[in-house]
Amino acid sequence: MFSSVLIANRGEIAVRVARACRELGVRTVAVASTEDRGSAVTRLADTTVQIGPAPARRSYLNAAAVIQSALQTGAEAVHPGYGFLSEDADFAEACAESGLVFIGPPADVMRRLGDKSTARAAMAEAGLPLLPGAVEPVRDLAEARRLADEIGLPLIIKAVAGGGGRGMRIVASMDDLDAAYRETTANALTLFGDGRVYMERYLAGARHVEIQVLCDGHGNGVHLGERDCSVQRRHQKLIEETPAPGLPRELTERMAAAAIDAALAAGYVGAGTFEFLVAPDGGFYFMEVNCRIQVEHPVTEAVTGIDLVQEQLRIAAGERLAFTQAGVRPRGAAIECRINAEDPARAFAPTPGSLEEFSPPSGPFVRVDTHAHPGYRIPAAYDSLLAKLIVWGPDRDAALVRMRAALAEFTVTGRGVRTTIGFLDSVLADRRFQEAAHDTGFLASFTG
Amino acid sequence: MFSSVLIANRGEIAVRVARACRELGVRTVAVASTEDRGSAVTRLADTTVQIGPAPARRSYLNAAAVIQSALQTGAEAVHPGYGFLSEDADFAEACAESGLVFIGPPADVMRRLGDKSTARAAMAEAGLPLLPGAVEPVRDLAEARRLADEIGLPLIIKAVAGGGGRGMRIVASMDDLDAAYRETTANALTLFGDGRVYMERYLAGARHVEIQVLCDGHGNGVHLGERDCSVQRRHQKLIEETPAPGLPRELTERMAAAAIDAALAAGYVGAGTFEFLVAPDGGFYFMEVNCRIQVEHPVTEAVTGIDLVQEQLRIAAGERLAFTQAGVRPRGAAIECRINAEDPARAFAPTPGSLEEFSPPSGPFVRVDTHAHPGYRIPAAYDSLLAKLIVWGPDRDAALVRMRAALAEFTVTGRGVRTTIGFLDSVLADRRFQEAAHDTGFLASFTG
Repeated sequence: MFSSVLIANRGEIAVRVARACRELGVRTVAVASTEDRGSAVTRLADTTVQIGPAPARRSYLNAAAVIQSALQTGAEAVHPGYGFLSEDADFAEACAESGLVFIGPPADVMRRLGDKSTARAAMAEAGLPLLPGAVEPVRDLAEARRLADEIGLPLIIKAVAGGGGRGMRIVASMDDLDAAYRETTANALTLFGDGRVYMERYLAGARHVEIQVLCDGHGNGVHLGERDCSVQRRHQKLIEETPAPGLPRELTERMAAAAIDAALAAGYVGAGTFEFLVAPDGGFYFMEVNCRIQVEHPVTEAVTGIDLVQEQLRIAAGERLAFTQAGVRPRGAAIECRINAEDPARAFAPTPGSLEEFSPPSGPFVRVDTHAHPGYRIPAAYDSLLAKLIVWGPDRDAALVRMRAALAEFTVTGRGVRTTIGFLDSVLADRRFQEAAHDTGFLASFTG
Repeated sequence: MFSSVLIANRGEIAVRVARACRELGVRTVAVASTEDRGSAVTRLADTTVQIGPAPARRSYLNAAAVIQSALQTGAEAVHPGYGFLSEDADFAEACAESGLVFIGPPADVMRRLGDKSTARAAMAEAGLPLLPGAVEPVRDLAEARRLADEIGLPLIIKAVAGGGGRGMRIVASMDDLDAAYRETTANALTLFGDGRVYMERYLAGARHVEIQVLCDGHGNGVHLGERDCSVQRRHQKLIEETPAPGLPRELTERMAAAAIDAALAAGYVGAGTFEFLVAPDGGFYFMEVNCRIQVEHPVTEAVTGIDLVQEQLRIAAGERLAFTQAGVRPRGAAIECRINAEDPARAFAPTPGSLEEFSPPSGPFVRVDTHAHPGYRIPAAYDSLLAKLIVWGPDRDAALVRMRAALAEFTVTGRGVRTTIGFLDSVLADRRFQEAAHDTGFLASFTG
């Protein structure tokens, strides 16, 4: 195992990684922006390096500064968390060139799978079904029009480099195509520094179901079942759960088997997620691979008993997986709610500010991953995720009840600070969600 | 299910019970002493009744006041937690006479099993092995001497009404017998209002292993495996775990089967614990039954996924157990540490005071049950338990590592306040504990 790991992230995931390192006896180096001085991870870590100010490109996205911090503190490896540099193949390569282990898949695998176009081509080759659409990026508006005729409506335009639900747009009418193409291309350039987009058929009434895989560097891989992340606001996940409710086991098992086969065929190493859309008729279609730990990984941990971040560290250190597929025996159901510092009444606008009370729930089968605490000042510079609340129950109904009780117990106050807690509860109280009759369009029509 | 339950307790267990009620949709009535005004459970409960001042006999032990509070608030049932009125058969009877459901075994069962002498007789009859000793209380000093000759040395004198490790004394030499008999008799009268004592052979090098049982009111019962509570300071448990390390599965399964058989034979209803001593040669001997939820119940919850307090409520409401013995499938290992507000350097003297920082650990497979919070004033009137830290791992080694990481993360500060956190870590770091080579005498010789 590594003697020291640098955590190239902030917020709850940095805390999460620090805990995994501690349990493995690994020293931790935190990096903190000026805004994050004294943050939760810096109190857990053995060493902290001040990495620069907000915005992120001057600190958490500054690859050279991160590598320099690792080298000067003697870290042997870098854990990128999610977001920031976590899917940057150039960064992974730069780590390797500096003699650092990047905790994630090899750079060439990231490059192939992180790019949605090449990923679609690779996955089609590995036998995963795709929605009708372009595997290659769209070259220009003329091609976009031609492809749209071929694919049919509705369709969705997505940034090749996109992620986290940003940079995509649904097109329901040919009249909107030109504007949508121009807008997504321009946005993609602004958001990701890469203006390329691709198009595919948009599937109405679909569920977002993803498969967690773990592959070691010795050709062994397992899947850890699925997560349903169909409760999305503007393509951003708010509530995630496992198992996927209301779907036949046979279907999710088939998806999981297809994903792990494709992962091994692609030479995947580490923890990764294969995202699919599941149509109302039970057809499933590959969307993308996330070459990193995901926000919603704790629901998988809760049902499998497997610590995913520890597994990432073990795999990166060259260890073999200590269990086989038969050794993965999920139990019960788990749900995660993202507690964001946002105002649901004002279109979920972020509400930075200082917390007065911050009193998360606790008790049996309740887990809270957070970097917040009483007195915490929520910076405006970063995303609004304040805490993840994860509960487990012997079945979905029990988990739902526990989640609602835990949300009711969660107290967050602060001048001007609002949270999604009440909104999440109203979603959980909705009959469609309770009966698993929802799809990815659910929240768009949700009025609380 | 009940519509409303009164929680006749304080501290972490009152919070624990309130959470279980919430998840079952049951309204809660808290009772609070003057010292506990505004406590954690009062913030969770739907209603709070001020029950009187400390000491406990003027509030939490005031059976009439508790029953009056339940009746005036319309509660249908009373959950006694542990300690206080939880093992008081007269209280259980008084509840029934007032039309309230006492959440625990029937009064006659409690009376028979709660009294250690009648319990020993009943359990001998049910086939459980006992250590050589008196089943009946010792009548006088002359009988004590005669029995001591019969039982042999070393022996232990225990209060018939004792509990929580109080009111017992080991006698290693006949010269000490007279004084020990007089002292335990006098102490028992002071502590429990019942001077009766009994004697049995004292087993050196033994492990304390207990079996959790759950029986409904329809003749169905299951055991939920064992807990090892051999790390004791002055007969008080500090660290508890499941499964019992280093004991053959065959042995603990035999103990569990014996316990559930005896429970059903005795007409037991509810959650209960059968405590045994396990000799170095693998012989096991019944000690006592605890007719209530126990402090250490969360380790059983962590491995079985069963919410014991919810089960207590369901059973008391007349429901049948929803699972059979085959449905109880423990997974992994769990450990609990009791975080007490005590000064290890001053013979574990309680350190009441006000908390400044109170920052419990969190993260995967970590649970903290507590009533404390930043600013909490620890009253001098009650026991010193501040929090229970429970961790789970796929095996004991993983759980141990996780516990030590969680302890390291647990920050408690306050003027004059000391805790057992550092002491617990030094016990966990001890080779004898790590190799499960410890017994109930371990802490007496432990120097940290």
